Amino acid sequence: MAAGAAGRNGPLLGAGSVLRLIRDGEATTRAALARRTGLARSTVAQRVDALLAHELVYEAGGEASTGGRPATVLAFNHRAGVVLVADLGATHSRLAISDLAGTPLAEVAFDMDIADGPEPVLANIGERFEALLEEAGRSASEVRGIGVGVPGPVDFPAGRPVNPPIMPGWDGFSIPQWFGRTYDAPVLVDNDVNIMALGEHWAHWRELDHLLYVKVGTGIGSGIVSGRGIHRGAHGAAGDIGHIRVSDHDDAICRCGNLGCLEAVAGGRALALRLSAAGIEAAGSREVVELVRAGRPEAILMVREAGRVLGDVLAGCVNFFNPAAIVVGGDIAEAQDHLLAGVREAVFQRSLPLATRDLTIANSRLGDRAGVVGAAIMVIDHVLSPEAVDRAVQGDATAA
Amino acid sequence: MAAGAAGRNGPLLGAGSVLRLIRDGEATTRAALARRTGLARSTVAQRVDALLAHELVYEAGGEASTGGRPATVLAFNHRAGVVLVADLGATHSRLAISDLAGTPLAEVAFDMDIADGPEPVLANIGERFEALLEEAGRSASEVRGIGVGVPGPVDFPAGRPVNPPIMPGWDGFSIPQWFGRTYDAPVLVDNDVNIMALGEHWAHWRELDHLLYVKVGTGIGSGIVSGRGIHRGAHGAAGDIGHIRVSDHDDAICRCGNLGCLEAVAGGRALALRLSAAGIEAAGSREVVELVRAGRPEAILMVREAGRVLGDVLAGCVNFFNPAAIVVGGDIAEAQDHLLAGVREAVFQRSLPLATRDLTIANSRLGDRAGVVGAAIMVIDHVLSPEAVDRAVQGDATAA
Repeated sequence: MAAGAAGRNGPLLGAGSVLRLIRDGEATTRAALARRTGLARSTVAQRVDALLAHELVYEAGGEASTGGRPATVLAFNHRAGVVLVADLGATHSRLAISDLAGTPLAEVAFDMDIADGPEPVLANIGERFEALLEEAGRSASEVRGIGVGVPGPVDFPAGRPVNPPIMPGWDGFSIPQWFGRTYDAPVLVDNDVNIMALGEHWAHWRELDHLLYVKVGTGIGSGIVSGRGIHRGAHGAAGDIGHIRVSDHDDAICRCGNLGCLEAVAGGRALALRLSAAGIEAAGSREVVELVRAGRPEAILMVREAGRVLGDVLAGCVNFFNPAAIVVGGDIAEAQDHLLAGVREAVFQRSLPLATRDLTIANSRLGDRAGVVGAAIMVIDHVLSPEAVDRAVQGDATAA
Repeated sequence: MAAGAAGRNGPLLGAGSVLRLIRDGEATTRAALARRTGLARSTVAQRVDALLAHELVYEAGGEASTGGRPATVLAFNHRAGVVLVADLGATHSRLAISDLAGTPLAEVAFDMDIADGPEPVLANIGERFEALLEEAGRSASEVRGIGVGVPGPVDFPAGRPVNPPIMPGWDGFSIPQWFGRTYDAPVLVDNDVNIMALGEHWAHWRELDHLLYVKVGTGIGSGIVSGRGIHRGAHGAAGDIGHIRVSDHDDAICRCGNLGCLEAVAGGRALALRLSAAGIEAAGSREVVELVRAGRPEAILMVREAGRVLGDVLAGCVNFFNPAAIVVGGDIAEAQDHLLAGVREAVFQRSLPLATRDLTIANSRLGDRAGVVGAAIMVIDHVLSPEAVDRAVQGDATAA
């Protein structure tokens, strides 16, 4: 289909590709851009003019050049817009507004119940987005994109949750359509652990090609960074390690309807239930963490053993996927280093030497901010992709 | 580092990118190439002239154009060279010569022992490569690239096996350097199951983004196609599922030094040992297959149960990686559909509904030709990559 001059049928090196070269610092003068692209000087000048007109770049000053007047250095204008992001959890959420470099301008975290269903939850998010815009002194017209993480599987291209077990009422709900009422900007929706993986990778492990992020909270899930991007799999279901079967635990009944799932043995809810059954009251994963911090040996033993069981599953993932690093986050991981110790023990015992030769196993460093950081990066990468910039610069908003 | 005019610092849209557009049929006239790339007509003409001079494209005839003389249609010349490939097994190998479209021109399969070590094995391969060239009526100077698959882990960028358990003497041996004595062409070396995965994907599943190829022969391994390319992982160890621990088999001692590995329970060698222990003589995986084909119930039962155990591990891989298809090859898979039946049973029982919604589980269709097909595709993709073509066209052979 003819999607206008830009888009899929547009030139391979449009204004968007030129912006990418400037943003990455690969070529920052008109002359360097012409050399790097092979485009004629006049074509480069046109592309740069379009980017200047849209305030996506600015002239940052002169560069000394041999035997002539100084060439003007071009720089990416990361203030050319903002993105709004939301990391929705089962009972707790975090929102942020950031500029186009991923720098947060304002954030807010609060309790809410995802089980209230999409309309009330998103109305709440919408109001808080407005408050964040006001706090940052920006307007709705400056919003270039919106990113949302949800605690369940997502049909990524459509932005709809798919049979999410802990999100009643959300199955098939179009989150992009909902925000489309208020904002004229693309809306990307992904599983929460995927955006956490992206955030952690971008903030602290950017030089690695392959990384596995594991979240151990009430449940257990993982996000896979493969070739520096998120691997979502054929149906957006990739990374769902919580329902991999573990050895010797066929007595554990999982909410998915199977026996012996990792989550039913080593997830925060399972640990809390087992502690409660042993007479030590724990309502959920946070109480387990408190017990560990308080030095209760039963809780410490249990978290350490959960780490071993998780490590047994991760040993398989290491053999299969051979990541350069495993980063562990979520409530239970924050219970000092007991979980990580168990994970390391099992992974290094069970994985092949070649796969663990330089394997790093570390705690999350962004903690509960990983989701909003990753969601911002996901949206910025999308709205600054060459195709999206070409469309924006051509004013062909309908092709989005 | 300045790697010459072409290479990393060369123009983004050099002759190699133009060739890719012609090869993919995206733009096949000089005018269409100018539109698609944004390059000036004169620049496109230069690029095309260079490709014509190197016989990588030819003028295929005229295309009716409105109100002018017909535009000349350009086509990729897949006869512009050949690639030589070898799929080395433990005791059996297959070699092929193919053109640059991946079409085989000649093939040969023969028994040999990889444990003889690199020098004698590669001398044998070298002689047979010469015979294949002669059979196809091509000369050594026409060889554009060489691809080799080996039954063990490989440091892919270096082309060296890394601690390969069944390849004594090969650890760290530079296969590219060996062939470099005879051929002035890049040599790519990969794990054999990776090239099989690539071959099967290219030949029969090209429309799928994510595929898992599993080989069940003497041992068990897998090759991962992620985003239509091979996922090799941080150290080229990805896909090594043979040493993932399976439930309830801690009595099985594996050659890797661990207990309960998948390969030690469900690999062809393990099945042969167990049949022999039960008084039914079987020297290896091929004899197991013969017993199954002969209808021996003990062997059928064992292969079916091996399928279930394999399926249990693959269920975890499906949850983790969410492929669109699993393709099963290797000797044991060829023992009618008993292995596949067991695999399907376990995967569909244990994997999450979303991940198995459209999951296809099928036998290999290329059989023991998968390796040479995949090796040819791997090498062709490499030698026709835009960077490699830019270098070739610039005559900058030293930058390879």
